[in-house]
Amino acid sequence: MPESLRKLAELFQETNHFLVLSHVRPDGDAFGSSIGLALILKAIGKEVRVFNEDGPNEFYAYLAGSVPVDKTPVERPPGSWKVVAVDCSTQERLGASFLGWGVRTDANIDHHPDNPGYAAINWIDSRALATAEMIARMALDLGLPLYAEAAAALYVGILTDTNSFSFRPLRPETLELAATLIRSGADPEMLSWRTFRNFSRNRFDLLREILNRTRFAADNRVAFYRLTVDLYAKTGTTSLEVENFLNYLQLVQTVQVAFMVEEIGPDLTRISLRSIPAIDVRPVAAHFGGGGHRNASGARVSLPVAEAEKQLVEQLFPLLRSSS
Amino acid sequence: MPESLRKLAELFQETNHFLVLSHVRPDGDAFGSSIGLALILKAIGKEVRVFNEDGPNEFYAYLAGSVPVDKTPVERPPGSWKVVAVDCSTQERLGASFLGWGVRTDANIDHHPDNPGYAAINWIDSRALATAEMIARMALDLGLPLYAEAAAALYVGILTDTNSFSFRPLRPETLELAATLIRSGADPEMLSWRTFRNFSRNRFDLLREILNRTRFAADNRVAFYRLTVDLYAKTGTTSLEVENFLNYLQLVQTVQVAFMVEEIGPDLTRISLRSIPAIDVRPVAAHFGGGGHRNASGARVSLPVAEAEKQLVEQLFPLLRSSS
Repeated sequence: MPESLRKLAELFQETNHFLVLSHVRPDGDAFGSSIGLALILKAIGKEVRVFNEDGPNEFYAYLAGSVPVDKTPVERPPGSWKVVAVDCSTQERLGASFLGWGVRTDANIDHHPDNPGYAAINWIDSRALATAEMIARMALDLGLPLYAEAAAALYVGILTDTNSFSFRPLRPETLELAATLIRSGADPEMLSWRTFRNFSRNRFDLLREILNRTRFAADNRVAFYRLTVDLYAKTGTTSLEVENFLNYLQLVQTVQVAFMVEEIGPDLTRISLRSIPAIDVRPVAAHFGGGGHRNASGARVSLPVAEAEKQLVEQLFPLLRSSS
Repeated sequence: MPESLRKLAELFQETNHFLVLSHVRPDGDAFGSSIGLALILKAIGKEVRVFNEDGPNEFYAYLAGSVPVDKTPVERPPGSWKVVAVDCSTQERLGASFLGWGVRTDANIDHHPDNPGYAAINWIDSRALATAEMIARMALDLGLPLYAEAAAALYVGILTDTNSFSFRPLRPETLELAATLIRSGADPEMLSWRTFRNFSRNRFDLLREILNRTRFAADNRVAFYRLTVDLYAKTGTTSLEVENFLNYLQLVQTVQVAFMVEEIGPDLTRISLRSIPAIDVRPVAAHFGGGGHRNASGARVSLPVAEAEKQLVEQLFPLLRSSS
C-alpha cells in the first residue's frame, strides 16, 4: 500500500466531515468518483457533501441518487470539514468558488499524470485509467463497504474514462475490478445505456450538423469541425452536449488526429484534440498554452476561430505519419 | 462440464482434420470464434481450414493472421475432415456452398438461444454473450493452449458481440475472461481501434447520409432510416458497411425501437430492428417471417421498401411504452 493511501486512510478515520470536489466541466469520472467516494464515506458514518463548480448535470442525474451534487458555494463551509479533490489535475480546475475560499485541498486523489500534488495528502496513480478505479481499489484494500449505489457510480467513472473499455491501454486489473463492481450490484447494461445512450433529440441534431460540417485534410489523416456560436441556438443544445463528438471523427481508420475549434468569442477559441496512440498531441496543445493527455488535449487561445483552425492544421502536419 | 463439451473434447482428440465454418454475413464473433478455434486446434497439432460462404472480409483481415479465411468451396473436402460450425444458429446460415455438400455438421458451438441443435454434437450456451466467450472458456476448461493470436481473435469476438462491454446484461465472468485473454497476449487497445475505428472515408460519408435520412416517429420513440439502392453507389460503399448503424439512432434516450429498411429489389426489402431491453422485437420480425434476438432481429419481406416501412411502424406502435 502506498504511503499516501495509508495517510488517506488515517484522514478518513480521524475526520467526520468531508467536502468532495471535482473538476469544472465534470465528466462521468468526476461525478462517478465524487459520488462513489461520498457513498463509501457515508457508509462508515461520515457526513459528506459533494460540490462541483458547474453544479449537477442532467446527464449524470441518475448517479446522484442519495448524494446530491451541489454547485460549489461561494462561502467556505466550516473549517472542520476536510476538502478532498477527486479526478482534478490542478487546484485551479476545482473552480473559482473553491479558489475564493483561500484554503488548501486536504487530499487529492487523481489519475492524471501531470497532477503536481497540490494537497496535503496526494495519492496519484497514473496507471489507473479512471479515478473511480482508484477509489474502488481503495475501498477493497482498506476494507471499506462498497454497496450497490457506490459500485454503480464507480462503474460509470470507469466506463466513461475508458470509453467503455476501448481505445485505451487497458489493464486486465481494470476489467477484473469492473467485474467486482458488477458483483457488488452495479448493473452494467442499465448503466451503459444511461451513460452512452442519453442523447436528447436536439443533441442528435447537433451530431448530424457536426458530421455534416466535418472536413478532412492531409489525405484524410486529419479530421476537424468548427463550432460556431449560432449552432447551439440552432439545435437547442448547450456546449456540454458536444462532449466526445470527436470520437465520431476517429471512426475513420486513416484519421490520425481529430480536432475541433469552438468559437467562444470573436477573439477566443477553445480547441480540443484527439489522436491515435502513436501520436502525442500534448506539444500542440502546449504551443497554444494548453495541456492534457498524450492522446487527448486542449487549450483556449486568443485567436478568432478561423485563424486558430488554420494554425492548428499547420502545427499538426509535422506530427503526422505517412499514409499507409 | 456439460456432456456436450465432453463429447467435443473427444472429437478434438480423435480427429486430425477440421473444417471450421460460420454464418453468412459474418461479424466479429463469426470471424473471432472461427479463427480462435482454428488456432487452438492448430496448436495441438491438427490440420484446420476456415471457411465462410462470404469469404474473407477486409474489416477483420487483421484477425486472419496465420489462419486464412477462404470462401466455402463448392466441392466437398474429403470425408475425413470433420465440420465444426461456430456462432451459427441454423445449418442454413452456413450458406449455399456448404448445403450443397449434403452433409451434416459434426459439431455446433453457439450461443444463440434459438439454435435447434442441428449437428451430431451440439454445445449451445445462451448465457454466453459471444461464441468466442464459449471457445475461450473451453480452452481454459480443457487445458488447451491459448496463445496471443488466438486470444486476440477471441477477444474481438467478445468485443463485437458485447458492443465493447455495453448495452448487454454483462456477466462479471465475461469481463474476467476478457482479462484472461489480455494476460494471454490480446492487445485491447489495438484490437478495439481496429474493430471499431475501421471506417473508410466512404463509410463515414454513408453514416452522414444515413443520419441525415433518419426520421423519428411516435414522439421520438421510434427512429428509422431507409436504404435505397442508389445510396451505396453514391457513397462508394457496400451493404456490409451499414452494419450496426442502428446503434447511432439508439443514442437518443427516448428511442425505444430503431429500425432500417433496405431496398433489395423493387418488391424485396431487408428489415433490421433494435430495441431497448424492455421491448421484445422478435414478434415483429416473426410477423414478417424473420427472427433473431429479443433486442435485435430482422427479416426479408416481399414488399416494396416504402410499404415495408409503413407496415413496420404500424406493427411497432402497440409495443411502445408511454413516453416518460
